[in-house]
Amino acid sequence: MKAARYYGKEDIRIEDIPEMPVEPGTVGIDVAWCGICGTDLHEYTDGNNFVPEHGHPHPISGESAPVTLGHEFSGVVYEVGEGVDDIEVGDHVVVEPYIIHDDVDTSENNPVYQLSDDMNFIGLGGRGGGLAEKIAVKRRWVHKISKDVPLDQAAVIEPLSVAVHAVSRAEPQAGQVAVVGGGGPIGLLTSAVLKAKGVTVVMSELSELRREKALSSGAVDYAFNPVETNVVEEVMKLTDGKGADLAFEATSVSVVMDTLMDALRPRGVLVVVSIWSKKHEFDMHKLVMKELDVRGTIAYANNHPETIELVESGKINVEPFITGRIGLEGLVDEGFDTLINHNETAVKILVSPSGKGL
Amino acid sequence: MKAARYYGKEDIRIEDIPEMPVEPGTVGIDVAWCGICGTDLHEYTDGNNFVPEHGHPHPISGESAPVTLGHEFSGVVYEVGEGVDDIEVGDHVVVEPYIIHDDVDTSENNPVYQLSDDMNFIGLGGRGGGLAEKIAVKRRWVHKISKDVPLDQAAVIEPLSVAVHAVSRAEPQAGQVAVVGGGGPIGLLTSAVLKAKGVTVVMSELSELRREKALSSGAVDYAFNPVETNVVEEVMKLTDGKGADLAFEATSVSVVMDTLMDALRPRGVLVVVSIWSKKHEFDMHKLVMKELDVRGTIAYANNHPETIELVESGKINVEPFITGRIGLEGLVDEGFDTLINHNETAVKILVSPSGKGL
Ligand SMILES: NC(=O)c1ccc[n+]([C@@H]2O[C@H](COP(=O)([O-])OP(=O)(O)OC[C@H]3O[C@@H](n4cnc5c(N)ncnc54)[C@H](O)[C@@H]3O)[C@@H](O)[C@H]2O)c1
Ligand SMILES: NC(=O)c1ccc[n+]([C@@H]2O[C@H](COP(=O)([O-])OP(=O)(O)OC[C@H]3O[C@@H](n4cnc5c(N)ncnc54)[C@H](O)[C@@H]3O)[C@@H](O)[C@H]2O)c1
Repeated sequence: MKAARYYGKEDIRIEDIPEMPVEPGTVGIDVAWCGICGTDLHEYTDGNNFVPEHGHPHPISGESAPVTLGHEFSGVVYEVGEGVDDIEVGDHVVVEPYIIHDDVDTSENNPVYQLSDDMNFIGLGGRGGGLAEKIAVKRRWVHKISKDVPLDQAAVIEPLSVAVHAVSRAEPQAGQVAVVGGGGPIGLLTSAVLKAKGVTVVMSELSELRREKALSSGAVDYAFNPVETNVVEEVMKLTDGKGADLAFEATSVSVVMDTLMDALRPRGVLVVVSIWSKKHEFDMHKLVMKELDVRGTIAYANNHPETIELVESGKINVEPFITGRIGLEGLVDEGFDTLINHNETAVKILVSPSGKGL
Repeated sequence: MKAARYYGKEDIRIEDIPEMPVEPGTVGIDVAWCGICGTDLHEYTDGNNFVPEHGHPHPISGESAPVTLGHEFSGVVYEVGEGVDDIEVGDHVVVEPYIIHDDVDTSENNPVYQLSDDMNFIGLGGRGGGLAEKIAVKRRWVHKISKDVPLDQAAVIEPLSVAVHAVSRAEPQAGQVAVVGGGGPIGLLTSAVLKAKGVTVVMSELSELRREKALSSGAVDYAFNPVETNVVEEVMKLTDGKGADLAFEATSVSVVMDTLMDALRPRGVLVVVSIWSKKHEFDMHKLVMKELDVRGTIAYANNHPETIELVESGKINVEPFITGRIGLEGLVDEGFDTLINHNETAVKILVSPSGKGL
């Protein structure tokens, strides 16, 4: 089968490799669509981060580069392994792409299984990937999804789960006001989840095209350019001078942290979603004097069922976030290049590994 | 009556001033003991911070320097104003020393009244102070305390309320493990409150004498010198490699923040109690990758009843934290000087304004 294999920095090859055997307890999936994630781009531009370097096998998967890429995917079951009796051939599924030690409790009882030692992702740390025609995945990580949801939209469930998890960290209530800093894919999906929960969303985003997308997709109520508009003043106007209840940081830009802290009410909650590669000049005085609450969020744990429900029920329409559909051969030239060169109109570019969806 | 009056930086005068009238709705208190707070020291060494400068009246009290100092005090009621029918002459009381706008809800319904606009403190922002023989205080801010509690110990209720509030921000559960960075008065009292709630307390503190006090007072279970001992390793040993549940930062030192973040388990809660005068190089990556939760805390709101109960019931014995008793004339020379010159054995120095307690 065809697969996109990551060898190292700026070295991704489309190769013909053997299909993975559908072992006992696993589910064989014919991949329909697989999204390209910011993490994939970072591995490509900056070199190995999640992908174990060649000769340094991952402690759980035992694999190292080259590995098959892709962790945001949907597909149709073509075979089930021995012992799997609650999924059938033909079912539509999405994957929660974790590589986690077998002795970790990954049930509802453990809300933080993603924080367990050596955690990695299918499609980065080994165990195949969604940028291949087929994959076999352990039953635990396979989630059924209604056939009423188009398979391209289903591929957005994984990044949407990141947003559902980030939002859950803030425990929002309907009627609250949230400020989202950054309208890239993560800020946009986070906004959409907040809106679905009845929260009024104010976005701060530099790019006009991204602000337009945020507004036209219905993900936000207000979108401001922080260079032209005093976002804090606007939030104060909207909240009768009280300040926002919640804030989400999705830029990893210091000035945005300050804006969000100023826009929050006393005891407001700020969730940091972005990944910071350097230290941040944090204004601790603001945190103390307003009793703010700054929380980290990473990936998801037990969030797929809720995310699937949000999409199946139509509470979130992910269609506006799909801005490109390409084949596997175009992965680097059409996919990565578009996203890396900061195409402001691109949100999610989906790949059809078999070409069947195109 | 005699009172310690703050005129400005390094200018505190013991003067004879008229007694405050006991107006309707207020309670006249014969001050027994008043503690010296770090905030008083900062006003003295660095100049006006909470005290409004002369000619710039505070928006609520209408007063400016000179003002009477002192906000950590206990006393005996000598007169009650018209309309006060639930407090009697002879009652022992402590004061929650707030100056807050009349239209702010200061009931149980508002857990953050201390974060309201223009908030200041009796003994800094006007309305008299505990470093005087007498004071009249609005009924709302007067709390009765059992006569079984010695009045000197009662004067520690106010700083202990800061600790009770800080601890409440972390919502601790008995059996948890907390790391406290810094064993000054605030770190020590915070530890004592944690212990009273059944939490195991590990302290990191540079000063040997302060570590000894922390251990001998029963406020902590373990006290380490971070220069000699790897505090993170010790916490990991104590928690089977899991990490601490809670951490409290009471130093305003950057390296302590890093230690506490490393010592916490995933989803651990870190409460920042200290006041930071400069920005902090915050390791946002740690916050995100461990889903930590960093919360500010300032002063107290509705914490006095619980604090009084902790002392009345004997769950916290504040006697070990009283390390000096002086008269009003010795305020600067014996009190402030001892505390400013970092006497490591001093925790709370109490002043008897009338000299009756000495
Ligand atoms: N926590 C997690 O689990 C998780 C998962 C995936 C991605 N992430 C991280 O989330 C972050 C956002 O991801 P993304 O794909 O949306 O990134 P992105 O780069 O596409 O989006 C960032 C956006 O911020 C905007 N921006 C930059 N400076 C700004 C400013 N001063 N004011 C307002 N807006 C500003 C940019 O215009 C851009 O649209 C990244 O750091 C990524 O690594 C985190
Ligand atoms: N949030 C609030 O409501 C509130 C109220 C009162 C005081 N405060 C603040 O709390 C903080 C602590 O007050 P305090 O009176 O206890 O101060 P303090 O200066 O007496 O105590 C600080 C302690 O930290 C220790 N320390 C310094 N560097 C250290 C290191 N690297 N490792 C371990 N220990 C170290 C010092 O030895 C000292 O004992 C201050 O910043 C104060 O302004 C806050």
